[in-house]
Amino acid sequence: MPRITDEWKIIEEGWNPAQHQGSESLFSLGNGHMGQRANFEEDYSGEHLQGSYVAGIYYPDKTRVGWWKNGYPEYFAKVLNSVNWIGLRLQVNGKNVDLHQLPVRDFYRELNMREGYLLRSFTVEVERGKKVKIEAQRFLSLQRKEVGALRYSVSPLNFTGTLRFTPYLDFDVVNHDSNYDEKFWEGLTENVASQKAVIVAKTKKLDFVVAAAMRYELFAGDHHLTLYPDSTKRDKYAENSFEVEGREGVTYHLYKYAAIVSSLNHPKKELLRAADEIASDAMRDGYSQLLAEQKQLWQERWQNSDIRIEGDSSAQQAIRFNIFQLTQTYTGDDPRLNIGPKGFTGEKYGGSTYWDTEAYCLPFYMASAGQEVARNLLVYRYRHLPKAVENAEKLGFTNGAALYPMVTMNGEECHNEWEITFEEIHRNGAIAFAIYNYVRYFGDEAYLAEYGLEVLIAISRFWSQRVNWSEAKQQYVMLGVTGPNEYENNINNNWYTSYIARWTLQYTLESLDTVKKLNAGRHDEILQKTHLKLVEETNRWKDIITSLFLPESKELGIFLQQENYLDKEQRTAADLAESERPINQHWSWDRILRSCYIKQADVLQGIYLFEDHFDRETIQRNFDFYEPRTLHESSLSPCVHVVIAAYLNQMDKAYELYLRTSRLDLDDYNKEVHEGLHITSMAGTWLSVVEGFGGMRVRNGQLHFNPKLPEGWKSLAFKIQFRNTTLELECKPDGFKLYKHSGDEINIWIKGKEYVLKGENKLQSAYT
Amino acid sequence: MPRITDEWKIIEEGWNPAQHQGSESLFSLGNGHMGQRANFEEDYSGEHLQGSYVAGIYYPDKTRVGWWKNGYPEYFAKVLNSVNWIGLRLQVNGKNVDLHQLPVRDFYRELNMREGYLLRSFTVEVERGKKVKIEAQRFLSLQRKEVGALRYSVSPLNFTGTLRFTPYLDFDVVNHDSNYDEKFWEGLTENVASQKAVIVAKTKKLDFVVAAAMRYELFAGDHHLTLYPDSTKRDKYAENSFEVEGREGVTYHLYKYAAIVSSLNHPKKELLRAADEIASDAMRDGYSQLLAEQKQLWQERWQNSDIRIEGDSSAQQAIRFNIFQLTQTYTGDDPRLNIGPKGFTGEKYGGSTYWDTEAYCLPFYMASAGQEVARNLLVYRYRHLPKAVENAEKLGFTNGAALYPMVTMNGEECHNEWEITFEEIHRNGAIAFAIYNYVRYFGDEAYLAEYGLEVLIAISRFWSQRVNWSEAKQQYVMLGVTGPNEYENNINNNWYTSYIARWTLQYTLESLDTVKKLNAGRHDEILQKTHLKLVEETNRWKDIITSLFLPESKELGIFLQQENYLDKEQRTAADLAESERPINQHWSWDRILRSCYIKQADVLQGIYLFEDHFDRETIQRNFDFYEPRTLHESSLSPCVHVVIAAYLNQMDKAYELYLRTSRLDLDDYNKEVHEGLHITSMAGTWLSVVEGFGGMRVRNGQLHFNPKLPEGWKSLAFKIQFRNTTLELECKPDGFKLYKHSGDEINIWIKGKEYVLKGENKLQSAYT
Repeated sequence: MPRITDEWKIIEEGWNPAQHQGSESLFSLGNGHMGQRANFEEDYSGEHLQGSYVAGIYYPDKTRVGWWKNGYPEYFAKVLNSVNWIGLRLQVNGKNVDLHQLPVRDFYRELNMREGYLLRSFTVEVERGKKVKIEAQRFLSLQRKEVGALRYSVSPLNFTGTLRFTPYLDFDVVNHDSNYDEKFWEGLTENVASQKAVIVAKTKKLDFVVAAAMRYELFAGDHHLTLYPDSTKRDKYAENSFEVEGREGVTYHLYKYAAIVSSLNHPKKELLRAADEIASDAMRDGYSQLLAEQKQLWQERWQNSDIRIEGDSSAQQAIRFNIFQLTQTYTGDDPRLNIGPKGFTGEKYGGSTYWDTEAYCLPFYMASAGQEVARNLLVYRYRHLPKAVENAEKLGFTNGAALYPMVTMNGEECHNEWEITFEEIHRNGAIAFAIYNYVRYFGDEAYLAEYGLEVLIAISRFWSQRVNWSEAKQQYVMLGVTGPNEYENNINNNWYTSYIARWTLQYTLESLDTVKKLNAGRHDEILQKTHLKLVEETNRWKDIITSLFLPESKELGIFLQQENYLDKEQRTAADLAESERPINQHWSWDRILRSCYIKQADVLQGIYLFEDHFDRETIQRNFDFYEPRTLHESSLSPCVHVVIAAYLNQMDKAYELYLRTSRLDLDDYNKEVHEGLHITSMAGTWLSVVEGFGGMRVRNGQLHFNPKLPEGWKSLAFKIQFRNTTLELECKPDGFKLYKHSGDEINIWIKGKEYVLKGENKLQSAYT
Repeated sequence: MPRITDEWKIIEEGWNPAQHQGSESLFSLGNGHMGQRANFEEDYSGEHLQGSYVAGIYYPDKTRVGWWKNGYPEYFAKVLNSVNWIGLRLQVNGKNVDLHQLPVRDFYRELNMREGYLLRSFTVEVERGKKVKIEAQRFLSLQRKEVGALRYSVSPLNFTGTLRFTPYLDFDVVNHDSNYDEKFWEGLTENVASQKAVIVAKTKKLDFVVAAAMRYELFAGDHHLTLYPDSTKRDKYAENSFEVEGREGVTYHLYKYAAIVSSLNHPKKELLRAADEIASDAMRDGYSQLLAEQKQLWQERWQNSDIRIEGDSSAQQAIRFNIFQLTQTYTGDDPRLNIGPKGFTGEKYGGSTYWDTEAYCLPFYMASAGQEVARNLLVYRYRHLPKAVENAEKLGFTNGAALYPMVTMNGEECHNEWEITFEEIHRNGAIAFAIYNYVRYFGDEAYLAEYGLEVLIAISRFWSQRVNWSEAKQQYVMLGVTGPNEYENNINNNWYTSYIARWTLQYTLESLDTVKKLNAGRHDEILQKTHLKLVEETNRWKDIITSLFLPESKELGIFLQQENYLDKEQRTAADLAESERPINQHWSWDRILRSCYIKQADVLQGIYLFEDHFDRETIQRNFDFYEPRTLHESSLSPCVHVVIAAYLNQMDKAYELYLRTSRLDLDDYNKEVHEGLHITSMAGTWLSVVEGFGGMRVRNGQLHFNPKLPEGWKSLAFKIQFRNTTLELECKPDGFKLYKHSGDEINIWIKGKEYVLKGENKLQSAYT
């Protein structure tokens, strides 16, 4: 477990092979376009998971399924392990440096979050008594999205001997989660010459092409060395290899520059040349300049996104780690990309996009990265609308109804469990809500006209067909769904799903009016394009809004997760032996399904999204009922409870749950960090802090804060991009400071009191 | 499609390669211990499914599953394709006889159901104008359970040339449904000599060992020929090969005798010798004697099981086909065996035992094969009781509760769909009901003491733990089940399941009393063995019997398939376009689940089993409600509706549904006969005739009949073994004849009137 004394770094000291695969995840690097696990540059024969990923490049792996159901997709899109560009074999006196084989001392690993690089150093004993110190630093350039660079420094400490360096590119890689042990890449070209190489490979399906080029140079101390390397190539692999005399006390720095370019961003024919040029430019500009760019850009990112917590180093480090990883995963400059649940840190889950993006990630990117980035997340789904319509058609829906996929890369559904794929349809609601959330936050109603309304109409059509009239109830019902709590499947009238469906219909009606007022021409254009029968269809929507069944218990004063929830034996998490948890590892599925235990916020997810619809007492009753029944066996669960607990002033509960979310990976609560990081739930941690402890809300186009610090926190400070202003709020137990760094006059509400900030402005106030 | 002019034979005329795989199923042979699809003896390079099966020998194939759930079994037991013993290559003038390569004329295939053999003849043109007539006859001996014999007759019609015969044994076979393309057999020994060979092989898992031996002899006309064959062997394969001059106009008969013995019935070390001896004995006794035995034994079988229908050849042929196949599949002399859904006619479904056995097959075997056979079907489950307890334990049940598996070979669960494996638990009820059904039929209460009660206690314990008290309803509920209608999954309070659960509890209480009265010592022994807390446990059972929720609609006067059934959009099969049927091939699973359409009898299954619990009006209302909603997309569905329709005098409906069940395979309604026959639903066809049109019921230990013939049937006659009598009833539209062939005095009720038969007796009566 990394130590937590440093608030800007993740630090690991001492060599612990058993934790290495977990550390490979924790120390991952990314720049929104590429990602690289913290694999070693030199050979490593011990257990590890090699991982290098290029955003948007995936593989449609043939589905594996026990019992096929009509409507299942043929394939599951896999995040694709790509070229190993960091590879650099080192032999000292003919002995291969491999930490699995040689004695290691003074192992140190650091993820520098402030400046965006990975550093590692250690001493290795290559022969009896002969020690070599090695230090490796690398980064994926934020400035140059297709460039990775590394410095690999070797110092023979107490002897002089030969050093053989073999920098290489290796595209002959596998995915560990391949369903049928297939290799996914086919080599096209391997060019290798002195001090350079380039490989072009294509995916065996879909014909994505990726080219990787390398350049390198060697210095003895400051002295540039001329090299005469041997070149070798084979299918999907190219290397240079050369030997130098390594003198005692001298440090040899090998700088390796790699460019990785893909057919997403270049014509296929030009990929080879592009990779070559970009790598060449990187070497020409040099490692120092690249690193300086990196520090500069990370400084800018932190400028707008940092959260400072005084009095709780552990929480401080954790929140920065979460923000760092989110920023590495998605930079928002390409609407074809999205935020995978593991980002670029592992293979698990495949696909890149879940409802996590809309329900958990969007608020972070809105407030930290700004409107353009947030808008691209929405446009991503707009671009997938035709596929969402196809997806719904496969399930028997008509008239342009859209069902967004549970898991996707290109808009097509990848998932294949009927109770999820076909029934966990609340995801459609999250996509509608994200449009509302974005428009509410930025006041950008033009987005509705340009993109949003078409999506809303398609989703409303889905809900309208998905409900049916119950003669028995004399109400509309929504049968056979799975709510956010996946510990109930195929239930009837899940309150959350029905509520968000009803809300979508309402918001679509309002958005039709909004667009009509804003741009009548565009309004008519959309009606034409969507063939919307305005009167007939909206009348049905209104009818559903009026008559949709939403289960509740009048006696308990709560909403019911589903109609028959109270038929279950009512127990709480406290009644459950520790040895039985997590229940999904100890109980058979039927037992889980008929228990009252909840995996993640469900009714409370709805209360979180629509807080303003409910009075405080209602929220309290639902929280008091559902929180004790919730096991938080999804990483996405605690954050929502934190926000509600803080709202209800249950700060101990809020802080307890905050710890579970914020250090989930750093402390490896779920014993699965070796598979990759929980990227999307990191956005949930941000929500916990800003909406939970900061109490941030947007109401009527204005920002409200209601800061409540956990015990022990001396202060909490964060920046927010809101509309055209940049604000910074520092909360202390007894008061706050509010800065306006840029933008126009703005009204801010803090603890129910209105403050007006003009020009560059700073407010200081004690709570009264 | 075979022609239907013959009431004792299935006949196919003309060579139709596209239908060959279907015919391979239809013309399958079996003797309860082995089965053989109607593959050709000679080479056939066209599409076909080679299939030779040995009862009780299976393979635990590694499970294939998309998303693993806790509690899933590691393997799925596969019916195992075994040694090809019929193999006999024929070359004429060096040309291989292969119906896929050569012109074929006068192709004729006959399944002789009366005498139990398969006959095939055809003429093939081996070279221009050179014609050879071939006739092949074979059977699996009912008398000698480990023997198969065939006669292969070759007549050069218009030329003299060389005939090369290559009889072989081939154990190098595959299963087409292997999950990972594994071969399942490992060769142990291949011995081959002149005119004999033996191969021993074992399964790669579980170490079942099977030995196959062959002998053969050749005759030219009646003249025995001395042969000097070459012997060849390789892994899992052995052959003899020899040439003779084939003279124009002479018929050459090759007789091949095979013995197939398994470690189920012999010590492993003696298998080789046993196979050798049994094959040798068969040849010594000769083909004619074996065939005479076969005819004799089949005559005896038909003596007790035949059903005669006058006025409807199609129905006559069909019911004989069903009886023939059922008799071939299970002979009831080994309680380790059972009745697989495809019997020995294909690989599909794997496993050997489903709830089909208890719910559909048992009545046929009770009435046609007698008490000993029926009892063995029950003992089979008794022997699996410890595994059923383990199976329940995997799902969290305790205290000796048993859940019998959905699909099994040795008592362990093989299935892996949570909504079926874990939730389609009504199968437990069918197993309890079978005990009741058997005891009711044979009056054998001693069975309860010996075996039945232990099973009943374990099943009652399961139900008792599977329900929970609903505070909301103030009743016990059974959540998360799948009823017989698999078009609803994970529903609450399935009426059928809850009803049969409640009935099981009641019957277990009664059986405790019965056994106590019958044999107090054994009663106490069972209490000790099962650790039954008599007062505490039976009190809970009584409480559940009193307070179990059974959903119904008072308004409609019907039982509800499940609590929320009336929330569904109510449509009938008539509302469904033909192009959408079967819906399981056209609709996505969620759409099926939330529709009101029913795959197979569910509430009506309960009404069928417990007819005497309900008044006629209740049965009528439920039938009128559910029949129109039932799609009969399971082969097990129509028979139950036939019985109820006949009871309600809806004879047109009864006959319409009867046709669907009785000629399902012969007319290939579902376009899947190439995969094998629907063996267990054939028992349903028998139910349709005897319980439906014959109106047979057992009440208070006495037989009741209420014959109702479909229009056009001149008579329906069938035999029944009941207790220690053999009865024959011939029904005509205007009266009946009742014969008693053996047994004591007996009272029989026909159309509500009591008749007493003494000694050998014949009654004739007209209905008044």
